[in-house]
Amino acid sequence: MRDGKIVAAVTGMDHGHINGMTEGIGEAGAVIKWAYDPDTEKTKTFLDHFQKFQVKEAKNLEQILEDPEVDLVLSACIPSQRADLGIRVMEAGKDYFVDKAPFTTLEQLERIRKAIDKTRRKYMVYYSERLHSEAGVYAGKLVKDGVIGDVVQVMGMGPHRLNPETRPDWFFHKETYGGILCDIGSHQIEQFLYYSGCENARVVNSQVGNYCHSQYPEMEDFGEVSLVGENGASNYFRVDWLTPDGLSTWGDGRTFILGTKGYIELRKYVDVARDQTKDHVYWVDEKGEHREDVSGKVGYPFFQELLHDCIDRTETAMTQEHALKAGELCVIAQISAQKIK
Amino acid sequence: MRDGKIVAAVTGMDHGHINGMTEGIGEAGAVIKWAYDPDTEKTKTFLDHFQKFQVKEAKNLEQILEDPEVDLVLSACIPSQRADLGIRVMEAGKDYFVDKAPFTTLEQLERIRKAIDKTRRKYMVYYSERLHSEAGVYAGKLVKDGVIGDVVQVMGMGPHRLNPETRPDWFFHKETYGGILCDIGSHQIEQFLYYSGCENARVVNSQVGNYCHSQYPEMEDFGEVSLVGENGASNYFRVDWLTPDGLSTWGDGRTFILGTKGYIELRKYVDVARDQTKDHVYWVDEKGEHREDVSGKVGYPFFQELLHDCIDRTETAMTQEHALKAGELCVIAQISAQKIK
Repeated sequence: MRDGKIVAAVTGMDHGHINGMTEGIGEAGAVIKWAYDPDTEKTKTFLDHFQKFQVKEAKNLEQILEDPEVDLVLSACIPSQRADLGIRVMEAGKDYFVDKAPFTTLEQLERIRKAIDKTRRKYMVYYSERLHSEAGVYAGKLVKDGVIGDVVQVMGMGPHRLNPETRPDWFFHKETYGGILCDIGSHQIEQFLYYSGCENARVVNSQVGNYCHSQYPEMEDFGEVSLVGENGASNYFRVDWLTPDGLSTWGDGRTFILGTKGYIELRKYVDVARDQTKDHVYWVDEKGEHREDVSGKVGYPFFQELLHDCIDRTETAMTQEHALKAGELCVIAQISAQKIK
Repeated sequence: MRDGKIVAAVTGMDHGHINGMTEGIGEAGAVIKWAYDPDTEKTKTFLDHFQKFQVKEAKNLEQILEDPEVDLVLSACIPSQRADLGIRVMEAGKDYFVDKAPFTTLEQLERIRKAIDKTRRKYMVYYSERLHSEAGVYAGKLVKDGVIGDVVQVMGMGPHRLNPETRPDWFFHKETYGGILCDIGSHQIEQFLYYSGCENARVVNSQVGNYCHSQYPEMEDFGEVSLVGENGASNYFRVDWLTPDGLSTWGDGRTFILGTKGYIELRKYVDVARDQTKDHVYWVDEKGEHREDVSGKVGYPFFQELLHDCIDRTETAMTQEHALKAGELCVIAQISAQKIK
């Protein structure tokens, strides 16, 4: 802590999400004290980008872990390494905020749970497709306000552009990236649990395929999952790396939330052939059809709530169990997936 | 036949689809000679509505079946009775054009197949959500033209407004309506087989629930199915009777066709909060984002093709196997469905 503010440090810049994570935490009022990556080029780019936060380069990871002022460590390291880093961070007495997917195996999850029990530190996860999406946040308010009644089903589409030339080697190896359901599927499962108010669910069907990228044999460019929540709500999602070049953004992410009294559709990053801006929320209730562009109007309350949770040891931003359960279900979906192509 | 034209007759007006079927066949150039329903009120309404076709009321079903001029019998009778009627029609030497779902049990299907083998007559099915939808027809052209490459997945949403006060008693009994996957799910499976070019598929997951209508214990107001085609294409759809009062039409039917080079979205009956007209086609390919309102621009070639098929004994409009396979898969999905609520 410094002057009542959470002091954060950044290590592990393997995924570009580290920028969103840092932006969110810094804008919410944390001091971003240190940055460290073994790749000094990455660190340099990061420091240049975040001059406004006056971040300093740490000599090594130890300097971050041994600094008593540091409360919270942010990382978007390689997915298969996230658990080990997190356990080390928690054992150094600090909270951890990691990019999704939070881990890639159930064995890692077991060790994470033990470390949480022992250290009482937080292992929080950056499920950006809800937490860092104003459409996603707005949908949460509509559901909470009862606009669509009880949630019957959540359906998600998470297409992403591949840009293979920009991807590091680990992105194409299943052991390191974890598989498509674990990787980008984790956003989808988190959204389902959140919108439906489920604490647990079972995987009833999961499938993956590699339709277009035989040059990357360990890649999965398509995946889909069906879940049933413990409260009877249903979930289906598909994810893919098949975004065509003609789309004006990286992916036409959609979420459909069907309730007993209406439904919501999120056109999260583009309103195809209508509007290239993001955060378009459409919904229909008993009164009529509605549309609102919520970009710039809602903000991202998660980050401030997380900092408060770190100070007060509460779980307002997200419960620990929710953060881990979404990760657990995506790993279960991944390991039980049938390969269909 | 009369003057080289197919002569059709109508019997079984239990479902309102009989109007679309008659309209399509009549506009395509058939003579609509007879109409008969045991409910004389239904027949009267029908004759009034179709004055332009100069239809006459038949005394009974036998008059239709025994009329040598009649080539084709149209029916939208109660789903569980469609097979028996169709077999009788084919054994009378006439082709049969029946509303979806074409049958409700596998036992019925077996008898239908035997009757087709024996009589060489057609058992054609009115899968209106593709055949009588200009958006649906236009999507078929886009796929055929290779605009989105090879089809990876078809995803469908088939929500319908219930209006329970307008529904007959048979609609609420599973034995007669066949279950939600068999009933409105049949459209979805037909679209998948058509767009993906699959001749067969397997049901990998199917689920139904009754979330809001406990007053109708045999009703299913939600259902969902995952299929994998023999060519590796995937299909998911959900159907429901949960359309909120505020929607400007009976259901916000959507179809998403994901290909290796792009994707198509059909907003079939409304473009929510944008446009209350139907037949909105959106697609993204390697060149850009596209949108076209195709209402009034495409037509419904199925009906003319069907009449030619009846004359020439060809299968241009739809193969017999395709018509039956969609029905077979929906019955399999229905009988294997898990009840989740």
